[in-house]
Order: sequence, then structure tokens, then C-alpha cells
Amino acid sequence: MNAEIISIGTELLMGELVDTNSPFLAAELAKIGVEVRWVTKVGDDPELLREVIERAWERSDLTLTSGGLGPTSDDLTRESIAAAFGEKMTVQEDLLVHLKGLFAERGFPMPETNIKQATLIPSAESIPNDHGTAPGWWAEKDGRAIVAMPGPPREIQPMWASYISPKIKAQNPDVAIVTRNLKTFGISEGGLDEMLSPLFQSKNPYLGIYSKQDGIHLRAIAKAATDDEAWELIRPMETEIRRIIGDGVIWGVDDDTPENLVASRLRSKGLTLGIMESFTGGLLASNLAETKGSSRFLGGSAVVYRDDLLSRHGVDPGLIEEYGSTNARVAEEMARAARKLFDADVGMAVTGIVTEPTEASGPVGTLHMGFAMGDDVSSTSGHYATSRLRLRSRASTHALLGLVRFLSGLPPQSLSLRR
Amino acid sequence: MNAEIISIGTELLMGELVDTNSPFLAAELAKIGVEVRWVTKVGDDPELLREVIERAWERSDLTLTSGGLGPTSDDLTRESIAAAFGEKMTVQEDLLVHLKGLFAERGFPMPETNIKQATLIPSAESIPNDHGTAPGWWAEKDGRAIVAMPGPPREIQPMWASYISPKIKAQNPDVAIVTRNLKTFGISEGGLDEMLSPLFQSKNPYLGIYSKQDGIHLRAIAKAATDDEAWELIRPMETEIRRIIGDGVIWGVDDDTPENLVASRLRSKGLTLGIMESFTGGLLASNLAETKGSSRFLGGSAVVYRDDLLSRHGVDPGLIEEYGSTNARVAEEMARAARKLFDADVGMAVTGIVTEPTEASGPVGTLHMGFAMGDDVSSTSGHYATSRLRLRSRASTHALLGLVRFLSGLPPQSLSLRR
Repeated sequence: MNAEIISIGTELLMGELVDTNSPFLAAELAKIGVEVRWVTKVGDDPELLREVIERAWERSDLTLTSGGLGPTSDDLTRESIAAAFGEKMTVQEDLLVHLKGLFAERGFPMPETNIKQATLIPSAESIPNDHGTAPGWWAEKDGRAIVAMPGPPREIQPMWASYISPKIKAQNPDVAIVTRNLKTFGISEGGLDEMLSPLFQSKNPYLGIYSKQDGIHLRAIAKAATDDEAWELIRPMETEIRRIIGDGVIWGVDDDTPENLVASRLRSKGLTLGIMESFTGGLLASNLAETKGSSRFLGGSAVVYRDDLLSRHGVDPGLIEEYGSTNARVAEEMARAARKLFDADVGMAVTGIVTEPTEASGPVGTLHMGFAMGDDVSSTSGHYATSRLRLRSRASTHALLGLVRFLSGLPPQSLSLRR
Repeated sequence: MNAEIISIGTELLMGELVDTNSPFLAAELAKIGVEVRWVTKVGDDPELLREVIERAWERSDLTLTSGGLGPTSDDLTRESIAAAFGEKMTVQEDLLVHLKGLFAERGFPMPETNIKQATLIPSAESIPNDHGTAPGWWAEKDGRAIVAMPGPPREIQPMWASYISPKIKAQNPDVAIVTRNLKTFGISEGGLDEMLSPLFQSKNPYLGIYSKQDGIHLRAIAKAATDDEAWELIRPMETEIRRIIGDGVIWGVDDDTPENLVASRLRSKGLTLGIMESFTGGLLASNLAETKGSSRFLGGSAVVYRDDLLSRHGVDPGLIEEYGSTNARVAEEMARAARKLFDADVGMAVTGIVTEPTEASGPVGTLHMGFAMGDDVSSTSGHYATSRLRLRSRASTHALLGLVRFLSGLPPQSLSLRR
């Protein structure tokens, strides 16, 4: 089965709105073994839209559209599908009653224009929209289908999960797709590419390499008749990858994030955390605050921007006088101070130079991380050469992965990438 | 002139990599008055790619492609353009010398496969790539052009700005496009849509409405023979919008962000800022840390997650005992305490309930913001009904806009949206 995705809306062609629906649908289709051949974005122009839909209807087994199901005269997805099928749209009494009910709930009568949201063509079924007024269409003829879904992500995503994905899966009962995502940190994309080059030749499982905020991801996808068989294809590849690049390089799998690893490690050990951060400017606290149960393990973070304020937060001013604030020894002291300040079991700290370097501090991108628990302290230092925005988020990722290692009694990883 | 954008690469069809090039190019083309009719994503399959490029060549005056210019056998953009033009690719001696030079600089010989990056067809010119090995192609015949650019954003964006955009502009000397973006907060998208509905009928200037993280944006685009004439079209529309929705609703224009407004306000007044935040969990500090000159005005932020730790940061424990921590009075005290803790002129604070509400605290989404300067304090309270992730970033936006008003001696805005 080959599929095509069409995202509809003039705002998508103005560059104002980034189309997140087509990557969402493409990733979802990959999970259920459907190959996407084309993705098209088209505006609300009736002629162009009709041409794109007719072409999709000719060439693709399954066409998924998003957008253009609203009530206005610019919303032309239904009309275009009706034209491609050569069928007439008629108002469906049951859909109209439901739609009027939705408006009644909101306390006002249905505008006349919304009536077209209650129409169907003979070859189409209505798909419920649990989060908006526009139902979807499942239009099918001669074994090919066009599925029209609404544009807003909060409407299309639940509609996909509840009604569309299960229906497509049921039509492909003999295809099982499994994926395994290995998340690495410490080796560059080029380095991994070279080390693993024979594995990239494999078609099934297929191995992809993706550069992400939190490192390089290696993603294996296998296709087979059953889940078990697909896993049997993937497992030897994972073993081989781990053998070649070394287990230590892989910090997580699948949906793991550095934040969630730290959160689950702290929660399972019943430990609390205090942070002191200058380099990351609050990002470390902000990332951890988004994790589940953060209010139980996170005491807080002292975001301290000026050296002279560090002493107010419990760092020995003599130490800063002696070493300056950008220093591994000070990072350890900051971690200790954070632990005390927030009455926590574990302390962590990141200090470094984002702007305005001095001779003593080293260049922009120099950073030091400290970790403290009981009488144990540990630190690591390094230098990033990259743009300002990414400096902070890389440091946040790295500090979180460093904390995971510290909690396991391992030494911190080097901050510089191996080729 | 009508244009078409093609993003090339199988990873784009897997949903793994979000295509940022086509929104970038679409927005850039809009700025120079070129209308985008189609955007297509296609994989590295030779047949499908060739079909997409041939179709674009038939129907569009200007086709912009990104991706597929690498050295591997999967990189087929050049071959597909050559086929569409019916021309033969030949190696260009000058390009080859340049390419070999790039590899020599890196200290290794050019792999044989890279030779195709030094080819052209008779109808194409080479476009320099100042950030990679793959030059672009400007292929033109019978007044229509296909422009092939590399996929990595750090290569395509400077290539566009230095070589492609000026060349397209030179072909449209009589078109001036100006845009004006009015950024609002406090009225819902539906509310603005209704209030401004007659203005949305206008074709030139065209008014768009976009829901963004920091509120609803109203963007007017005008097209005329000169910049002055285009501004004359936009100005009356801006006046009309301001008259209808009220000046207070518009917090910024064009490239303004809440962070940058706060930063420039504080810098110009020579004021420093201290923050205490529980609800926003470090996001407020993190957003401000990214602004220019932040190290000069930002003292720091105390991210305090547990009530019992507030007293360590200078908040009167008696006050929390009396009112609880989720309270406007406490928000004002936190702002005062932040000012002292970071030895700052201005203090701000955000407290509220992100999880685990109690009877006294109010429901999830309840929040209170406090501002302090000298003996002045001010606060505002409200409730957001939305998902957890957006709670924090909305609160950060709102607190920053509140601070801008506080610094101007205005009362804070209400936290609830007007319809």
C-alpha cells in the first residue's frame, strides 16, 4: 500500500504556519507499515486544490488530507473530493442534528455556513471529531481511499488515533513494524556513520541516523509478518551496534529523555535534587520541571548570574576570589551549596562562559559541571564550539546525563565529542 | 511569477525530519512578492523524484528545490533536472579544482563519488556554497528556472540570502512587498476574527491572523510598485485595527518578543532584575537569559519548588502559614524577596498550581504574579485552562508582558482572555 499526504491551507504556503500534520502522519504511517510517496502542501485555491486531489486519487492507494474542512467558502476539501469521485454532496440529517447540538451546547444557534460540515457523498463515511465541529470523511471506491481530516493538531491527532489508524491497520493485518531507537552522546554523526557504515546498507531492518538536540539517534525499523519476527530482525542489529560503538555511548532507548532518566532515577531512589546554574540560565530547572512528579524530587534551582551573588547562595567568596567563578572546583562547591540551599540529597551545578569571556575564564563555550551527594563530589569541564542558543540546551542535556552517571557512581563523560 | 518548492529526501517522508526549508523559502518568497502555489516533499526514489521535477518544470515559472545535492547515489536532484531539461551533465574543470581544494583544506583527498558535485548542464550556472561542498544550480530555459539548493539549513539559508534572493528580486524590480505584524494578548483568536472581520476581506493589504505562543498575531502584507506606496496601503489598516481592538491589546510589533521588550526596557532604564518563580520552574529566567545583554540586567532567579524553602529565600514564613503559597499577597512578597536576594532594582515572581492542587490553592492553572520596585508592589491573579506544557510558557509570556506594564506604571493586564 502506498500513501500520499496533502496539507491544505494558504497559510502553509506563506511560511507563516509550519505544517506539523504531515510529519505526524508520515511517522504514524511508518509505524503501521504504510509507505508515504508524496507530501504536498496546497493553498485554498479551488482549481489547484482540485488538481492536487485528483492527481492523488489517480496515483495513490491511500490519500490523507488535513485542513479545509471548516465552514467558510475557503474550506474546499469536501468539494474537491466530491469532484474527484464525480459524486454529489448531500446533507445528512443525523450529522446535522449532531452539529446543531454542538452549537446549542455553546449557547448559540448554528450559522447557516456550517451546514456543509454535515454533508457526505455516497462513497464516503463520516468520521467523528471528538474535539471540534468538523467531522472527517473516509471516501473509498475501487479499493482506494481518500481520508479527509481537520487541520488543527488537537483535532487531527485524536481523530487519527481513535478512528483512522485502527481502520488502516485492520486492512494490513499481516504487516508488523517495530522500531528501536538508540540514543547516543559523545561521538559525532560523521564518526557513527563511519563506524556503522556496513549496517546502513541493510534494507530490513533499515537503520537511520538522526542528529537531535540530545545527541545522535540510531533508529532501526523492521518489517515482518508478526511483531516477534520483526523483533528477531532488530535484536542482532542492536547487539552489533552496541558491540561496535560501545555501551557507554548509548545513554537511552526509544522514548527516554535525559530529563526523564534523571527523574526516574531520583524518584526510584527517593532522592531530592537542588540545582545552582549560571551557564544554563534556568533551562536545567525548566527542563526538569516538565517531568512527571517533579514537585516531589525537585527542591529548586538558584539561577545566579553574577559572581558576587554566589556567596549569598552559600558559595565561599574566598574560593571565587582564588579561582574565579568559571572553574571545576567552584562548580563542585556550587553543587554542594545547592544541596544545602534546597535541603536536598543531591546537588548539581553548571557554570561557564556564555558571553564576555575574560583571560582567566577561557573562551565562550567553556563550562564546568559539578555534582554532590553526601561527601561525594565530582566535576567535569570542557568547551563547546557552537551558537549561543544551542550552548545552553547542550549543556542542560549533558549535565542531566552527567547526573545519571554520577547517581550510578560512574565518572562523568568528557564534554568534547569524539570524531 | 508563480513558484513551487520541492523538498527532497526520504527522511522527510518518514516523519523523522521536519522540513524547515520549505516554510523558510515560502516566507522569503512572500517577502519578495513571489506567490508559492505548491510545496512537495518527495523521497530519493529516482522515478518519483524525476516525475515531481518534470511536473514542476511544466507548470511553474520558478521551482526551488532543497536537498539531494550530496555525493551519494541517493542524491539525484542534478540528474533529475538534467533529465527534465533533456541535457547532459559534464564535469566543470573550475568547479572540480575548487572542490578538491575544499577537501585538501580538511586534509584528505576528494573521494571519487564527490566528482558529481562539480558537474553542470549547458542551461545551468553554478551557485557558490560558502558552507559546504555542494554548490547549487541555477538552471534556466525559455524564461523558466529551476534552482537547486542543498538541504542543510546552515547551507541553504546563506546561499539563499547571498545569491538566490538578490537574483530573483532583480527579475522583479517593480514589486515592493511590506509587512506589518501586530502582536496582541488578551483577546481570543475568535474574538479578534469577529471584531476585524471586514478587514479580512481586503486583498491588498492582505490581513492574516495567526495564533502563536505569545498571543495572536495580526499580519498585514501590502504589494505595490515601491516601498512607500506599499506602506501607504498598510498604514490606514493598522490605524483601523488599533481603533477597533484598542491600543492596550497590542503589546508589540514586527520582531518584538516579550523577552526583548523586557530586556530593552531594563537596559534603557539601567535597572537590574531578580526573579522568584515556582510556577514557571526556571523558564522565565531561561527565556530572559537568551536576550542580548542579559548578564548586565539579570541578577538571577530563585526557582523554588517547595513552600518550606521559600523562607530560606527571604519570604516571611508567617505569611505562607497565613495565606498558603498560592496567593497574590505571597507573590508580591516573593517579588520583594527576589529583589533583595539578587540585590536588584526590580523583582518579579510567579507562583501557582501546576500539579497537586489543594482546597486552599484553587485548581491546576491558578497563578499569581507579583512585581516590586522601590516601595511599589503590584500583583495579578488568574487561571489558565490548558495543557501542562503550555501553562508554563503562557505564564512566562504573561509575566514578561506584565513586567513591561509595571515598568511603565500601568496596572497588570487580566490573566483571562476576553472572547
